[in-house]
Amino acid sequence: MQRVSIIGATGYTGAELIKLLIRHPRVKLEWLTSENFAGKKISDVHTSLKGRCDIVCRKLDLDKVIHDSDIIFSCLPHGTIYENAGRILKARKKLIDLSADFRLKDPKQYKIWYKFSHTKTDLLKRASYGLSELYRDEIKKAHLVANPGCYSTASILALAPIVKKKAVVLNSIIIDAKSGVSGAGRKPGLAYHFPETNENMLAYKVAEHRHIPEIDQELSIKAGHAVNVTFVPHLIPVDRGILVTCYTRLSKNLKAKDIFEIYREYYAGEPFVRVLPEGEFPQVKSVVYSNNCWIGLQFVKKTRELIVIGVLDNLLKGASGQAVQNMNIVCGFPETVALL
Amino acid sequence: MQRVSIIGATGYTGAELIKLLIRHPRVKLEWLTSENFAGKKISDVHTSLKGRCDIVCRKLDLDKVIHDSDIIFSCLPHGTIYENAGRILKARKKLIDLSADFRLKDPKQYKIWYKFSHTKTDLLKRASYGLSELYRDEIKKAHLVANPGCYSTASILALAPIVKKKAVVLNSIIIDAKSGVSGAGRKPGLAYHFPETNENMLAYKVAEHRHIPEIDQELSIKAGHAVNVTFVPHLIPVDRGILVTCYTRLSKNLKAKDIFEIYREYYAGEPFVRVLPEGEFPQVKSVVYSNNCWIGLQFVKKTRELIVIGVLDNLLKGASGQAVQNMNIVCGFPETVALL
Amino acid sequence: MQRVSIIGATGYTGAELIKLLIRHPRVKLEWLTSENFAGKKISDVHTSLKGRCDIVCRKLDLDKVIHDSDIIFSCLPHGTIYENAGRILKARKKLIDLSADFRLKDPKQYKIWYKFSHTKTDLLKRASYGLSELYRDEIKKAHLVANPGCYSTASILALAPIVKKKAVVLNSIIIDAKSGVSGAGRKPGLAYHFPETNENMLAYKVAEHRHIPEIDQELSIKAGHAVNVTFVPHLIPVDRGILVTCYTRLSKNLKAKDIFEIYREYYAGEPFVRVLPEGEFPQVKSVVYSNNCWIGLQFVKKTRELIVIGVLDNLLKGASGQAVQNMNIVCGFPETVALL
Amino acid sequence: MQRVSIIGATGYTGAELIKLLIRHPRVKLEWLTSENFAGKKISDVHTSLKGRCDIVCRKLDLDKVIHDSDIIFSCLPHGTIYENAGRILKARKKLIDLSADFRLKDPKQYKIWYKFSHTKTDLLKRASYGLSELYRDEIKKAHLVANPGCYSTASILALAPIVKKKAVVLNSIIIDAKSGVSGAGRKPGLAYHFPETNENMLAYKVAEHRHIPEIDQELSIKAGHAVNVTFVPHLIPVDRGILVTCYTRLSKNLKAKDIFEIYREYYAGEPFVRVLPEGEFPQVKSVVYSNNCWIGLQFVKKTRELIVIGVLDNLLKGASGQAVQNMNIVCGFPETVALL
Repeated sequence: MQRVSIIGATGYTGAELIKLLIRHPRVKLEWLTSENFAGKKISDVHTSLKGRCDIVCRKLDLDKVIHDSDIIFSCLPHGTIYENAGRILKARKKLIDLSADFRLKDPKQYKIWYKFSHTKTDLLKRASYGLSELYRDEIKKAHLVANPGCYSTASILALAPIVKKKAVVLNSIIIDAKSGVSGAGRKPGLAYHFPETNENMLAYKVAEHRHIPEIDQELSIKAGHAVNVTFVPHLIPVDRGILVTCYTRLSKNLKAKDIFEIYREYYAGEPFVRVLPEGEFPQVKSVVYSNNCWIGLQFVKKTRELIVIGVLDNLLKGASGQAVQNMNIVCGFPETVALL
Repeated sequence: MQRVSIIGATGYTGAELIKLLIRHPRVKLEWLTSENFAGKKISDVHTSLKGRCDIVCRKLDLDKVIHDSDIIFSCLPHGTIYENAGRILKARKKLIDLSADFRLKDPKQYKIWYKFSHTKTDLLKRASYGLSELYRDEIKKAHLVANPGCYSTASILALAPIVKKKAVVLNSIIIDAKSGVSGAGRKPGLAYHFPETNENMLAYKVAEHRHIPEIDQELSIKAGHAVNVTFVPHLIPVDRGILVTCYTRLSKNLKAKDIFEIYREYYAGEPFVRVLPEGEFPQVKSVVYSNNCWIGLQFVKKTRELIVIGVLDNLLKGASGQAVQNMNIVCGFPETVALL
Repeated sequence: MQRVSIIGATGYTGAELIKLLIRHPRVKLEWLTSENFAGKKISDVHTSLKGRCDIVCRKLDLDKVIHDSDIIFSCLPHGTIYENAGRILKARKKLIDLSADFRLKDPKQYKIWYKFSHTKTDLLKRASYGLSELYRDEIKKAHLVANPGCYSTASILALAPIVKKKAVVLNSIIIDAKSGVSGAGRKPGLAYHFPETNENMLAYKVAEHRHIPEIDQELSIKAGHAVNVTFVPHLIPVDRGILVTCYTRLSKNLKAKDIFEIYREYYAGEPFVRVLPEGEFPQVKSVVYSNNCWIGLQFVKKTRELIVIGVLDNLLKGASGQAVQNMNIVCGFPETVALL
Repeated sequence: MQRVSIIGATGYTGAELIKLLIRHPRVKLEWLTSENFAGKKISDVHTSLKGRCDIVCRKLDLDKVIHDSDIIFSCLPHGTIYENAGRILKARKKLIDLSADFRLKDPKQYKIWYKFSHTKTDLLKRASYGLSELYRDEIKKAHLVANPGCYSTASILALAPIVKKKAVVLNSIIIDAKSGVSGAGRKPGLAYHFPETNENMLAYKVAEHRHIPEIDQELSIKAGHAVNVTFVPHLIPVDRGILVTCYTRLSKNLKAKDIFEIYREYYAGEPFVRVLPEGEFPQVKSVVYSNNCWIGLQFVKKTRELIVIGVLDNLLKGASGQAVQNMNIVCGFPETVALL
């Protein structure tokens, strides 16, 4: 029985983590920390947890959390946990961080995209990028897992197979992403006030979103060559779900069936990633409330364009589901425990 | 040409007022006041107004507003305008107040329901309750119009005809009300954060909502006898619209056709109120974005129950539409100008 | 390992049943029958099942289904399975019927509400009304379980405790019910066409809904006296969820704390029913995607009114969740298996 | 006073046309035709029209419609009106066709995209493509106006200014389009059944949508060079609204301010098209229920990409609003009558 704790447990990713972990037969929830809701039951913060998890939130006391836990999930905002992550590792406990603090290998990127100087470059080196399907072997041995961003997970899973084959023009990949509103977190604001968001659609952070360096980094690794994607996220009035529509142009002479073969082979045996047959495209509603990512492909022979569409639940495969998947890998549990 | 100004113009009722008034051929918008957005164009606050109304909001300077206006709409929060309303009337300008500050005739009710001591009892006496269909003649001569609450408008319009006939048991009227989220205003909060409100329904202020004294007051006047309704409002994930389902029991020996006759006669010639034929029930979607209130009736012969269902757009007939209707009456314009 | 089959498996209740049963460690899915989709995988009908349940639907061959199954769930429309249910029982297999065919004890009611003559009066007598919390002991021994309607489950659970105490006026119970759209089934029609339903609310079958005789029957049993409720259902633009607001008047001299005590005692130890503390009211979003039913109470001392609010997921506790709960009871499994 | 009729009046575009035309001071509605609803009031088909337009629908009798009308709007499905359009023109009446029947100049395209042989090539030549801002002078003299598709209007308005300058690489324009559900029409089907569509997002007709030839045709004219766009439409769970995100790469050496200047100049003085300032991006909610199209621009200096985002209401500027705008042009009325 692994003892697990969640730092910053009261947001949406925290709530989803809890829902998964209380169903997990091989872990026991210890600490739930919250600065704003300390002293309150988590089930008074997220009422759907009533009777399922009534643990009282406590203010973070990291030494005690470390002492009482084998695995620590951090759902703190970006730029928070990185200072203290070292203490967790020193105590030989494991950290699965849902923020961006350890996702980027190049510390300078933090200054550019997250506006803070990342001083823990040693830890950056030790961190495994927690895209389970791509880094499974590395994650197995990891003490520090940097759980990927939601858009990043969808985009990288959609593009990795073909990019790895170096079969598309690398400097003109376009990702048009659409996300449900839970991706923006639980802090109220006018932009997410129901009468403003409902019956609306909009683009935001046009070609300026923080998940860009993450996607670039990973696709560059796959390609063995610098990739710079164009990425535009959109806010869509649904609770959950991400749909990415990726536009690429083939650089190699492949047929539709070759492309499908590349994708099917890449994800062969994966429990959570599914490549749909030709002519089928994935819908968000097929994967929400699951840890699945589904991928559909359209090859336009005339123009040699390949359009890849990926969907997932931003709170599950895009955050807490993948975090539990990573925990399962780290702990040597079957990867699907609590996730089917 | 009447000069009109709006105090507290940046909320949803303000925006709807503006949309109606800029279409109105006989008024000219002067002041839009806002404490938080002073210096900004109203069209930067409500982007849908871009190019249609780009007036710059100013901090309230009541003397200047009075000087520059013939009619003043106040969309300030409850308990704000009542202190200074007298200055407007003294200057012989007209005030249409969308708050509750002049709706209740009994000053003590303000202490109970709104938690402030209403000291302007003389003004309370001068105010006309702005339910246009019921008080048209009085409103014509009014200098101070208390525009009704949204739930109150729907409930009173649904019940007034039968209550006036004293044909229902007065001490057991139940009103189950459902409202879209714009009724809660534009101030963000967790309760109206999209991922909390969307795909949800809930009852709130169960039998404790502030529109209760207003409904009781008006139905009591109609009945000539004290009425105390049971009123439970619910929040429904739509932008706009109120549906009230009113449960009453007949105290007189009437048939279905008598009841329809009572309703049709009561609203004969009304441009905005429609009584549907037997067997038809109104839908919110038929009336949103209009100043209409539609009413459907079901009489259960066996139990002598009469169920009355009313729908309207909370921001229009339930607020700004009715405010303009009242302005039309006050100014002697045709009542439907800018409202069809 | 129990072998289970679902007759009429392709609707929303069928899909939810499948999702629960494939997680259930002690059953094995055998037949999924469908007249319209025979030959197709269920996962091509409900894509979210891809990879989770890819059983091919077959046309109903009842003898074979009976042969291959220990438990049969029927999701056929009302008035369909009752003719052949006897064959299932004769073979000593168990039937959990999600239609209304065995819910009403008085066969004449079928003529009135469902427009068919129920000829199997012997089976009506053998059927157990599957409201698990109320009839657990009877269901344990049942061969034929009549799974309750969604509105009925919410209404009866909300009212049973106080009605059983005969503490409310029995001839003036009003239930104002609001339901998500999945309650109307999966057959497309203009009334459920997205642009008609979205941003809308409406009442339908006002005081004429088929769940009325079911609610009356069960509350009458509890009260030991004929109860006739007033019931008005409303369609609300959400996928799932029912909220019932029940209006009653006390006939006994009770205090708020007595009433809470009655409810808490009635549901003591129940895994799926929760009575909220005074001042809290349940939200649909707290219970959707679960088998829970939550209840909130408001007592208005002055008027002696008791308002009871209940919420549940119409597809789970209101249909398939409760069906699995009943199966667990029938089979002697722990009642919560596959439902937490 | 122009006499106007609508053929095929009972869909969403018909209903919107009616709402605009009944407000228009210089036209009078004559015929509303419907094959399915002949004999019914239009207000029984679209209840929101009750009391505003209660004209009874009639089966189409084209000779009589022609006799009684000066202007005829056709909202028939594609491939229907083109056979008989000649009769309207011969009678010297004017036709504004909301289908695709006269949008494409090359008759062979109809075979490819609409699966019928277009035999009226003379009429194709006489038709004006009714994108009001681009063809105003031609439309003034037109007898046959081919009202553009909804996606086409948004896409062409977003791209025309920069394409006309030949300032972008013409063979790699990508348009990622998102539409509300009313764009799919009023005919129910599983794909638009509320519980399937709500909380969902999906791509459809990926790179195969019928608006592609229309967009290609018009952009090619502007560029003076063949343009073939990549176009992927998505279904989003809102009633109304289209958002197109267009990805282009500059072929000329322009700065951000040059690009803004090109757009502002192109749309200078346009009452319905607005180019937002740098850093602002349009939201669907700002333009729904209006005839407006708003455009936002993002230029990524490093990669020389220009991202253009356009929004409009698919039923108004994308269909019926633009049809009335075209009627105003054809009739010599001020272009904004009934549209502000």
